[in-house]
Amino acid sequence: MNNCIAAQSGGPTAAINASLAGVIRGVLDCPEYDHIYGSLNGITGILEERFLDLTETFQDPKTLELLKVTPAMYLGSCRYKLPAPEKDPAVYEAIFRFFEKMEIGAFFYIGGNDSMDTVDKLSAYAKNVQSKVRIIGVPKTIDNDLCVTDHTPGFGSAAKYVASSLLEVFHDTAIYAPKSVTIVEIMGRDAGWLTAASALARNEYCAAPHLIYLPEAAFDTEAFLKDVKSLLETRSSVIVAVSEGIRDKEGNYISASTGAADHFGHSQLSGAGKTLEYLVQERLKVKVRSIELNILQRCGAHIASLTDLEEAFCQGQHGVSLAARGLTGQMVTIQRICSDPYQVSYGSSPVCEIANQVKSVPRELINDAGNDVMPEILSYLRPLIQGEPEIEFEQGIPRYLPVPQLL
Amino acid sequence: MNNCIAAQSGGPTAAINASLAGVIRGVLDCPEYDHIYGSLNGITGILEERFLDLTETFQDPKTLELLKVTPAMYLGSCRYKLPAPEKDPAVYEAIFRFFEKMEIGAFFYIGGNDSMDTVDKLSAYAKNVQSKVRIIGVPKTIDNDLCVTDHTPGFGSAAKYVASSLLEVFHDTAIYAPKSVTIVEIMGRDAGWLTAASALARNEYCAAPHLIYLPEAAFDTEAFLKDVKSLLETRSSVIVAVSEGIRDKEGNYISASTGAADHFGHSQLSGAGKTLEYLVQERLKVKVRSIELNILQRCGAHIASLTDLEEAFCQGQHGVSLAARGLTGQMVTIQRICSDPYQVSYGSSPVCEIANQVKSVPRELINDAGNDVMPEILSYLRPLIQGEPEIEFEQGIPRYLPVPQLL
Repeated sequence: MNNCIAAQSGGPTAAINASLAGVIRGVLDCPEYDHIYGSLNGITGILEERFLDLTETFQDPKTLELLKVTPAMYLGSCRYKLPAPEKDPAVYEAIFRFFEKMEIGAFFYIGGNDSMDTVDKLSAYAKNVQSKVRIIGVPKTIDNDLCVTDHTPGFGSAAKYVASSLLEVFHDTAIYAPKSVTIVEIMGRDAGWLTAASALARNEYCAAPHLIYLPEAAFDTEAFLKDVKSLLETRSSVIVAVSEGIRDKEGNYISASTGAADHFGHSQLSGAGKTLEYLVQERLKVKVRSIELNILQRCGAHIASLTDLEEAFCQGQHGVSLAARGLTGQMVTIQRICSDPYQVSYGSSPVCEIANQVKSVPRELINDAGNDVMPEILSYLRPLIQGEPEIEFEQGIPRYLPVPQLL
Repeated sequence: MNNCIAAQSGGPTAAINASLAGVIRGVLDCPEYDHIYGSLNGITGILEERFLDLTETFQDPKTLELLKVTPAMYLGSCRYKLPAPEKDPAVYEAIFRFFEKMEIGAFFYIGGNDSMDTVDKLSAYAKNVQSKVRIIGVPKTIDNDLCVTDHTPGFGSAAKYVASSLLEVFHDTAIYAPKSVTIVEIMGRDAGWLTAASALARNEYCAAPHLIYLPEAAFDTEAFLKDVKSLLETRSSVIVAVSEGIRDKEGNYISASTGAADHFGHSQLSGAGKTLEYLVQERLKVKVRSIELNILQRCGAHIASLTDLEEAFCQGQHGVSLAARGLTGQMVTIQRICSDPYQVSYGSSPVCEIANQVKSVPRELINDAGNDVMPEILSYLRPLIQGEPEIEFEQGIPRYLPVPQLL
């Protein structure tokens, strides 16, 4: 027998199950491989021998299609960073003992930066102990901050959610004559790609968001207030998109707060959006609201990007073909051949070149004032949010694949 | 000439433009009426003579279809409460002078409780001055708190957004082994209908939300903590749906906070969700997150309920037929003939029986412990979220009708 095992790790996205579906499809179609197992809660499922046999479950293409559009992680996640092998060899021994017992020929780890670190360590260890198990990384992250690859699965769907929501927020706020400011806080602690995607909400009648602030440009409170004030002179509703990770020029998060306590006596921490809301209220004396898109931007699968889901699926499939060709310690990558018409190809890179690094938005894609993105970024971003998957509704709510009972 | 004028007022919903589309369709189809005008920013547009001629714009049925699915208010809104006629007769004189000048035979006011108060006052005034202008109220509110009518346009779409989001949040939070609590704050200051709709997220594998708190039952902090703690014993992820308007047994909002200040020195007010987040963190020492669905629940037209939009449209049309039949001072109502199969009819009631009253969730539809809804409420709610409108996407984001430039 030559079996495979897949696992998912890190924060959820709307596309990480599409990657898993691609891995499953790849294994089912690959004459070299027999069973495909799924480790529950990432690598910890292997350590605790908690896993599912996915071969039977996903024989029916309809079930696989349903997995593809289901948000978050079918196999569950973990936040477990593998220790260095020299520090804790027992962990590695346990993992490879499990691989041997289950006759595993390839392990597919679907995740972000931390998961690529795991892929890196496991493949290095395999080489050392002359194990033939191939270790392949399949990327995902809504942050789009993985190096080498053009963009990451999960990002396009989150970007589509952000842009669509911003357009709807524009409609919602355009209706009142009295002046108002709306601040929308978007995920991305270090990389501003997702906040930049808010610019995709702009169309022939919607100029919102009117200001965009990314973590990659130092945030200046006074300049921000001046910008908002100036915009309020010509329009009644000003919409600001702001990354949760914005920092001042000393590198301090704008979200930090001190000495605050609610009526239960607990100290409070405000996010960037809330903090700017209070600031605008206090200094500009204008109606202001902040909206935190929160986890909905990563799990809103009902408005996922079809391009994103299809690419995630293809990257999962491609991962299997890499393993079948004998590669290991590689992460699947996507290369952009052309933005218009949009065309990509799939490849791979040694995971050691990718793990533990962050791809930020280049400063030249942000305007000089640091309060908007440059138009060039739109031609990069726009293809990633195209297309809508067919979501079936049951009793008025989206139909997704049930979360496994073991989870 | 015998013209009509429509206006929209109050907070936005995903269906209030569908009501306007129904009024427009009704007028275009009615041989008795000629032009249909739209007053900008509610009744204030009439006072300031700011209006559009909608007749030409919506001759094309496709444009009308696009209006139907566009969120918020095409004509803009206002928060203007008409003074009593004896206190400020000039306002009434100005309105009816405008009606006379524009040869208005009927005025359709699409809105919630406050708008029905305007309809009431205007129709009483018309009677007094023997004006033949017919004044008709067309209801809307995501709060579903208007009396007499079975439910209100806008509620079904918001309910569908809430239920779908809750299901997606369930998927998102089901993935981690460590225990966590997620608190979702839902709109509804006085009426808990929308929070109750979160129960529609439940299906054969999703028991979330595990706790539901409405403003109609007194909120007990200690009982809440006990409930959460007890649930955490048997499951890793607990999801709580909470109305923004929950109050303790003395009637104090749980959202109130005192003495807090952020690092800019401003005092802070936390919503119910945030307040409970801090409480759980402090007392149960467990990972906790709060999510405020915010205005997205009322403007998320990309996941509107088709039933809601169609009923809103029909109620707009029905309003026109009421006026054409010579009725005035009436609000369009919807009566439920049957829940399964779902069947309704349209009627009307004197607006004076509806204005300035609130329909709360009856206490018997909440369980004794006050931490969940009774199953009976689901058969009332479920038909309202059925069906999905066809949303066209352009460049990856929903295509809506542009906001008029005058707005």
